[in-house]
Amino acid sequence: MSEKIILDYGSGGKASQRLIKNLFVKHFDNSILSKMDDAVLISDLQGPLSMSTDTFTVDPVFFPGGNIGSLSVHGTVNDVAMLGAIPKYISCAFILEEGLEMDDLDKIVRSMAIAAQEAGVLIVTGDTKVVPKGAVDKIFINTTGIGSVIADPSPSGSRACPGDAILVSGSIGDHGLAILSHRQGISFETDVLSDSQNLNHLILKLINELGDVHVLRDPTRGGLATTLNEIALQSDVEMLIEQDRIPIREEVEGGCSFLGLDPLFLANEGKFICILPQESAARALEIMHSDPAGQGAAIIGEVREERKGKVILRTGLGGHRLLDMLEGEQLPRIC
Amino acid sequence: MSEKIILDYGSGGKASQRLIKNLFVKHFDNSILSKMDDAVLISDLQGPLSMSTDTFTVDPVFFPGGNIGSLSVHGTVNDVAMLGAIPKYISCAFILEEGLEMDDLDKIVRSMAIAAQEAGVLIVTGDTKVVPKGAVDKIFINTTGIGSVIADPSPSGSRACPGDAILVSGSIGDHGLAILSHRQGISFETDVLSDSQNLNHLILKLINELGDVHVLRDPTRGGLATTLNEIALQSDVEMLIEQDRIPIREEVEGGCSFLGLDPLFLANEGKFICILPQESAARALEIMHSDPAGQGAAIIGEVREERKGKVILRTGLGGHRLLDMLEGEQLPRIC
Repeated sequence: MSEKIILDYGSGGKASQRLIKNLFVKHFDNSILSKMDDAVLISDLQGPLSMSTDTFTVDPVFFPGGNIGSLSVHGTVNDVAMLGAIPKYISCAFILEEGLEMDDLDKIVRSMAIAAQEAGVLIVTGDTKVVPKGAVDKIFINTTGIGSVIADPSPSGSRACPGDAILVSGSIGDHGLAILSHRQGISFETDVLSDSQNLNHLILKLINELGDVHVLRDPTRGGLATTLNEIALQSDVEMLIEQDRIPIREEVEGGCSFLGLDPLFLANEGKFICILPQESAARALEIMHSDPAGQGAAIIGEVREERKGKVILRTGLGGHRLLDMLEGEQLPRIC
Repeated sequence: MSEKIILDYGSGGKASQRLIKNLFVKHFDNSILSKMDDAVLISDLQGPLSMSTDTFTVDPVFFPGGNIGSLSVHGTVNDVAMLGAIPKYISCAFILEEGLEMDDLDKIVRSMAIAAQEAGVLIVTGDTKVVPKGAVDKIFINTTGIGSVIADPSPSGSRACPGDAILVSGSIGDHGLAILSHRQGISFETDVLSDSQNLNHLILKLINELGDVHVLRDPTRGGLATTLNEIALQSDVEMLIEQDRIPIREEVEGGCSFLGLDPLFLANEGKFICILPQESAARALEIMHSDPAGQGAAIIGEVREERKGKVILRTGLGGHRLLDMLEGEQLPRIC
């Protein structure tokens, strides 16, 4: 019979220690984590820091293109990087439901280890809570990351300037559609994989080669439309987007029209918006296209000053429509 | 009718933005958080850092002496401080169950703000997920903290030396018993309050006045007995503890014998173990007694080299017994 997670694994006693040693310390293998104190000493971070936190509650836990473990590393690595920073250290905190299959936890932890290795970050400290059956749905993971900011000034949602070019690093809506297609109760088939991936290496190239990048942000929950709206509000500018230039896979377009969803509001977990001076835009696009994480990159619009705080979509026929932020979410537990 | 948390609050859309602005940014009020980027820029942390993470799943959410909000700040502030560090910045990530009362969330957030202010830390970044009813039990909170390490060398569970004195900063088992007395299904009355409190100011005094402190650790899950066992293993030494010197409230002794529990294994959330050279012990005790957080402090034993990795309890009658780590937990969801 397969082993299941029991309450004792979250007790702080012998069973906890075994789980930590045989699973977490084993896979996340590094000398800082293995010291086993309640806090960790980090000696080599210089200058200003970037810090970000995210809790992952995605349903289903395993989805086409990833699982909650890889996603929990990618998500925080990317958020830390968006300040023009090199992510270095990550904490991870698990909430496990009593009865979770140990094999599933093992797969998730292995995926986290691989994602961390690919990003060049160390998972240095953690926490494990096991709650009685029914108190949480299978597994939720929090990751919090810190890194060294190398951009000066640092990109921020408040730095978009009229005249700037707006780029997106690749196709939109893949993660949202991939999750949806495997959501219980939805019968729908697609070959679309989640785009969940680390973006930090590409971000580093952009910062190193271009110097000043005004805005970097990954359009996760709420999708491209919501994130552009946030930036328009933070910077008090208009975002004019050319609808035809937004990269969207045919399968995503198809799936969305089948389900009655708008891909512009679907979550992405491996894409970012980049806003920078017009004169750097062509070079930025080249850099993105030369990296596996930026293959589908495109210039999708420009920052203007007319309708401050608004995102305007220019359609193929030359019409304009307001692309507003949604009140709520098209679907919960997408990340 | 009272307002309840709905899924839209976790969407990343307009409802999310309102919750963040009207609740989190309002109460946690600081210029770093209010920038509203996905990661925050921290410019003023010098030298080595201490980092720690913890997820709080305590049941009940409100308990005598605190609630999940204050606890989530105290717990992480204390873990960061135990490396001989000044905690500075905290992230907080909420998982909210659809249908949670907004009034309850408001109370919890206010308690976090007060606890952070008392500790002198800023809550600078966060995340809010709302999951459908039944996918989590009411509210879980992750906090991750960073701070500047001022002790050099830094205290660690691996630095206990034969001859060192073992102190504890106050009465043992209060948190565990307070939670238990309010756990559903347990009918039991007591006046005991949780000891949940910030320990960072007292820790700072000890480090500043004494210089080298070998070990600092707060005996949370698993209690004093488990934590002493961890240290004995990490340092490969014996811990000899005088049973009569362990400070335990009469009400806790009484409650424990009624419930068939051992107070040495009950969680504490406002106490710490301090291990340091014998010649500093009297002064350490004075410093503790002069601080509100160390009123009940006592010297409870000494580090020896005989039975490496073991904790030995010397009873009032002069007998000795092995104080082993439990396999599991006396009760889940204590923190």
